[in-house]
Amino acid sequence: MNIYGDRLSGNCYKVQLLCALLDVPHRWIDTDILAGDTRSEAFLALNPAGQIPLLELDDGRTLSESNAILNFLGDASDWVPEDAYQRARMLQWQFFEQYSHEPYIAVARFINTYLGLPEERREEYLSKQEGGYRALRVMEQQLKNSEFLLGARPSLADISLYAYTHVADEGGFDLQGFPAIRAWIGRIAALPGYRPMAPN
Amino acid sequence: MNIYGDRLSGNCYKVQLLCALLDVPHRWIDTDILAGDTRSEAFLALNPAGQIPLLELDDGRTLSESNAILNFLGDASDWVPEDAYQRARMLQWQFFEQYSHEPYIAVARFINTYLGLPEERREEYLSKQEGGYRALRVMEQQLKNSEFLLGARPSLADISLYAYTHVADEGGFDLQGFPAIRAWIGRIAALPGYRPMAPN
Repeated sequence: MNIYGDRLSGNCYKVQLLCALLDVPHRWIDTDILAGDTRSEAFLALNPAGQIPLLELDDGRTLSESNAILNFLGDASDWVPEDAYQRARMLQWQFFEQYSHEPYIAVARFINTYLGLPEERREEYLSKQEGGYRALRVMEQQLKNSEFLLGARPSLADISLYAYTHVADEGGFDLQGFPAIRAWIGRIAALPGYRPMAPN
Repeated sequence: MNIYGDRLSGNCYKVQLLCALLDVPHRWIDTDILAGDTRSEAFLALNPAGQIPLLELDDGRTLSESNAILNFLGDASDWVPEDAYQRARMLQWQFFEQYSHEPYIAVARFINTYLGLPEERREEYLSKQEGGYRALRVMEQQLKNSEFLLGARPSLADISLYAYTHVADEGGFDLQGFPAIRAWIGRIAALPGYRPMAPN
């Protein structure tokens, strides 16, 4: 099984982290977005959408979208609740992540940390702050009431939201006012098998 | 079971359509976004994120995010593949919908059809065209090769992507160049139990 990913991308880190926690054997193929690797002919043949992470099974079938990959790799593991309602709640958090969290926090981080906050993107960067803080408030509200997003046990939802939340400061977000999120970040980093994201 | 939704919203229509196809008994509670219903105290007590659709079970538990609601209502039905890889592919399309399709096509439609394309949002409206057409090309590519997004049988992925695609013209998108998408729209509208979206 091959996983194509960029070590600096939070979406790719989600997959890396789950593989570490579940000890999933795989070959990691470094794919540098900024260097244009995802626009190469070879990569576009694998994923016409030109996006990473991308999972390639040994039989050649592929799967994209970080949260879909998590659901595939975590299927029938302790990271997916057995109860149908809880499974749907897990998906609720994952769709929230892709719609209401990532487009603000990940994009602000990308502009700030990878592009060096160029003047022509400053307005866009600033426009991401309100939505990012709104997403953090939704998380804080839940994490005040439970150790992990679904309750006492971690699930794929925690991995999905951990990826960009724990580096939110790189997008200009101050977590000082979010004590429940900070405690949750500590709990995830203490899980057996945890691996940190690659440093910048 | 209560479902809070706005009949003009594609995200809400997804849930309405699946309920019709599966004949799920429920009480529909009309919730008008433009009239501020989702900002009322009563609604925010149910969903602090202030978003619809929202599912409320008889025991008071709630579920948000349209695609998560579909997965809950469709659980163990013919609309969810049994095979783990196919289930993950279904989620791949649903995450694609929320990240690469809805933010372009649904937002362009909202600005154009509901706000009447006001001058101060024209630039934003125009900026949505490229991403919307890119998403349509990805769909066209798949639907040239299979009757439905996952193959010969419809799944929740088709419902998720049908909702805004079949009214993409209301966002200024011309489907003339997408014959496979148009044929697929026809196949979905012909499914037993199908119900159309409320007219504007």
